[in-house]
Amino acid sequence: MPQIYDRVALIGLGLIASSMAHAMRAAGLAGEIVGHARTEETRRTALEIGLCDQVYETAAEAVRGADLVVLCVPVGAMGEVARDIAPFLEPGATLTDVGSVKQAVIEAVAPHVPVGVHFVPGHPLAGTEHSGPRAGFATLFQNRWCLLVPVDGTPPEPVARLRRLWEGMGANVDEMDAAHHDLVLAVTSHTPHLIAYTMVGVADDLRRVTDSEVIKYSAAGFRDFTRIAASDPTMWRDVFLTNKDATLEILGRFTEELFALQRAIRRGDGDHLHAYFTRTRAIRRGIIDAGQDTDAPDFGRTKVHR
Amino acid sequence: MPQIYDRVALIGLGLIASSMAHAMRAAGLAGEIVGHARTEETRRTALEIGLCDQVYETAAEAVRGADLVVLCVPVGAMGEVARDIAPFLEPGATLTDVGSVKQAVIEAVAPHVPVGVHFVPGHPLAGTEHSGPRAGFATLFQNRWCLLVPVDGTPPEPVARLRRLWEGMGANVDEMDAAHHDLVLAVTSHTPHLIAYTMVGVADDLRRVTDSEVIKYSAAGFRDFTRIAASDPTMWRDVFLTNKDATLEILGRFTEELFALQRAIRRGDGDHLHAYFTRTRAIRRGIIDAGQDTDAPDFGRTKVHR
Repeated sequence: MPQIYDRVALIGLGLIASSMAHAMRAAGLAGEIVGHARTEETRRTALEIGLCDQVYETAAEAVRGADLVVLCVPVGAMGEVARDIAPFLEPGATLTDVGSVKQAVIEAVAPHVPVGVHFVPGHPLAGTEHSGPRAGFATLFQNRWCLLVPVDGTPPEPVARLRRLWEGMGANVDEMDAAHHDLVLAVTSHTPHLIAYTMVGVADDLRRVTDSEVIKYSAAGFRDFTRIAASDPTMWRDVFLTNKDATLEILGRFTEELFALQRAIRRGDGDHLHAYFTRTRAIRRGIIDAGQDTDAPDFGRTKVHR
Repeated sequence: MPQIYDRVALIGLGLIASSMAHAMRAAGLAGEIVGHARTEETRRTALEIGLCDQVYETAAEAVRGADLVVLCVPVGAMGEVARDIAPFLEPGATLTDVGSVKQAVIEAVAPHVPVGVHFVPGHPLAGTEHSGPRAGFATLFQNRWCLLVPVDGTPPEPVARLRRLWEGMGANVDEMDAAHHDLVLAVTSHTPHLIAYTMVGVADDLRRVTDSEVIKYSAAGFRDFTRIAASDPTMWRDVFLTNKDATLEILGRFTEELFALQRAIRRGDGDHLHAYFTRTRAIRRGIIDAGQDTDAPDFGRTKVHR
């Protein structure tokens, strides 16, 4: 794969940035990878495990000379970081981000972007419940989608170049506008996460069902919720605060449907339940066909032995 | 592993029964495995793929001469099957089931059990979203829990023997009473399933977010919900109809918590959200430590290539 950027600056060195570093290195996509993290411990780890060729104490230092700057901090911190780095961005450089919300990021970042720098917001739909510089792995983006959300007036070349980078890391790339992105993600990601957090919280609260039983018998459905609900608290706090309207709208629809099913249970309306469950089963088929999960009888899971 | 039963009759030949057949064969736990399924197609398949040594058109025929009879039909069908087979059960035989609800099964089945037959209700906490005789695999119960719920007056020997069978299939076995079982499962399985079904239904309803987008971008959290919501509709209808009280109680607590989080989002109360998400993260750690899931950075998932 030909090199796409000479010097990539990763601002924030968590799961996504460290996965990008591994993936870019594996495919030879970047000449040099430098980074900044707030804590000294993270900066030290990034050097130690070879994530970055150089790390810097400030984001401003890290972006000097970079032709690609990637903001990998929680959505709520993007604006401040953009303000700090703005004067030091190279003319002609591309500035992107990996935040899970796009309208709020654009509102916070765009005002700081100097003329001559191309701001191309992005969002890779990939992650695990782990965080930090050691959480990354090179294949995280393989066959996952990355959504690019170019702002008005961005020339096509920087967008195409960033697309090539994501494709080089194994992702499929789509473009959409910011409002639509935030609604789609409220459905496919934000509301499911809030629901998973809630269910895990309820289990934790129940004193009659002890923690150890909930954990012991988690394989029956709850386990998948706990994985989702183990995601980074700061990242998710920011997602809900900044994608408030779309999340509240989808939550409203969710509780409406949930109450209808609850009433069917209370009334013993088996036909309603059966019809509903049959309909949802079909959606799963679509996801398998779209290659976004495995149909293996054992889920393709690694066996866990004690 | 020594043979534990001479002749095991599986009534209903879906995911659990077919997995039991594979697991019993692999470990040499049963002398003969026979079965009954309602449809001719399932009976033919069971013979074709070697699940059963013999299949019978009626459950009554299948249980003759069996020292273990396993009811593997939906919870709502257990009572009728028990009535049909009761006159044909061998004295000294053990009758068990694999239903996800225990109080309702005991109420439906126990009145039909003749004196001299040992009824030991059971519930393996294992499954996938697939159904039918081809869905089973021998390792489904490996390192999963099987809960036995003996009714009053059952002698210890038949319980111990059934426990050895499940342990021989790789499961860990616990005993608990039926009411506690139904509450624990309402938390760890039944309510999570209802919530997943609801979320997938909401996504399906949204016309502005087309099906194809929801499916395409499902990797961001929603995917796990669709897997849960692809489970067998008849089985789950019966679960909710028969574990109504515990499910409604946990659902009530769930909506209460969800409304509190929804209000925090509306008010922009980031501290509340962050504290909640931090608490739920700890539960995940407990599940990894208990060996009920993998901590691998890529979830131990098989890569899906298109």
